[in-house]
Amino acid sequence: MNRLDQQMNFIMEVDKLKEITRQTYISSGKRLENDAEHSYSLALMVALLSEHAEEKIDVAKTMLMVLIHDIVEIDAGDTYAYDDVLNQTKREREVLAADRIFNLLPEDQAVYIRSLWEEFEEGQTPEAKFALTVDKIQPLTLNDHTKGRAWREHEVHLDKVMKRNEHTPDGSQVLWEFAKSIIDKNVANGNIKS
Amino acid sequence: MNRLDQQMNFIMEVDKLKEITRQTYISSGKRLENDAEHSYSLALMVALLSEHAEEKIDVAKTMLMVLIHDIVEIDAGDTYAYDDVLNQTKREREVLAADRIFNLLPEDQAVYIRSLWEEFEEGQTPEAKFALTVDKIQPLTLNDHTKGRAWREHEVHLDKVMKRNEHTPDGSQVLWEFAKSIIDKNVANGNIKS
Repeated sequence: MNRLDQQMNFIMEVDKLKEITRQTYISSGKRLENDAEHSYSLALMVALLSEHAEEKIDVAKTMLMVLIHDIVEIDAGDTYAYDDVLNQTKREREVLAADRIFNLLPEDQAVYIRSLWEEFEEGQTPEAKFALTVDKIQPLTLNDHTKGRAWREHEVHLDKVMKRNEHTPDGSQVLWEFAKSIIDKNVANGNIKS
Repeated sequence: MNRLDQQMNFIMEVDKLKEITRQTYISSGKRLENDAEHSYSLALMVALLSEHAEEKIDVAKTMLMVLIHDIVEIDAGDTYAYDDVLNQTKREREVLAADRIFNLLPEDQAVYIRSLWEEFEEGQTPEAKFALTVDKIQPLTLNDHTKGRAWREHEVHLDKVMKRNEHTPDGSQVLWEFAKSIIDKNVANGNIKS
């Protein structure tokens, strides 16, 4: 298969993200968000909020990182942040997915996109830290905007929200302060259980 | 309002793209695509296909351009490519939308994003040409993958497809050849009327 056909096959495969449903409602509250929409929002946030990153980031690299960060869920499914059982097998399921899906690309791009996904998962570089921060903040803002519905439906407790956000300040202290004010408000009004 | 609040308000406003329906089916054929999903696919295509651009492009700038290119449709609606009546008022409706929506951002970003949108609309720079090319090719690949359903439902004629794609080769001759083979196939099988 030629290079362009490989690239186009990958892009068509990734279209399946549009049917991977998350546990967050879109801003109107009318339905749950999917992975393609979530990744769209993250890429826009990376571009517009990079000035708040704790360390200087390569914006293009970080945008691509968030565009590809959930592709493994095409095979592995969306593992809800607060589902302890499913989270035990998450890594194993996602590595198998990465092996299959990224290798649809021409080899050089397969290697690069795989490394970018691993970099995101490891969360050590400035780009990965900022990507993880926006990945956590985006659903918080939607949950807040939709009156805490997703938190209430899952009876989410504050300790789990804080545990999930333990590295959020690493990417951006400014965005973490913003997130913290949202969390505090939703604890006060009972959407998040304390 | 502080800078971060302005940025976050804009990002929440842009969330409405998730409910602007296009006339293209997603790859499974189960439902129509929305603008956020379409823009997601374009950004990924820009990142992975930039080697095929006719002229060297700034990839980060082009990714952001495609992420913001349809935001005006939040107010102006999606104007179907082959709807002649609605296309007469498209520009006017979209300028009003740009005035409102981009100005939710802090002034420096409002000016930049507005200029990026105008650059896309004018289609003269290497980045705008490539963005326009992927914007045309992405629905072609989905229409082809979904057995031409969108073309058949709208009884689309070849001359309109060709007219709509008159500048597609400007962004990438390689991608245009790819598109042309899709068009030829769908004329041959009757999905596009000749």
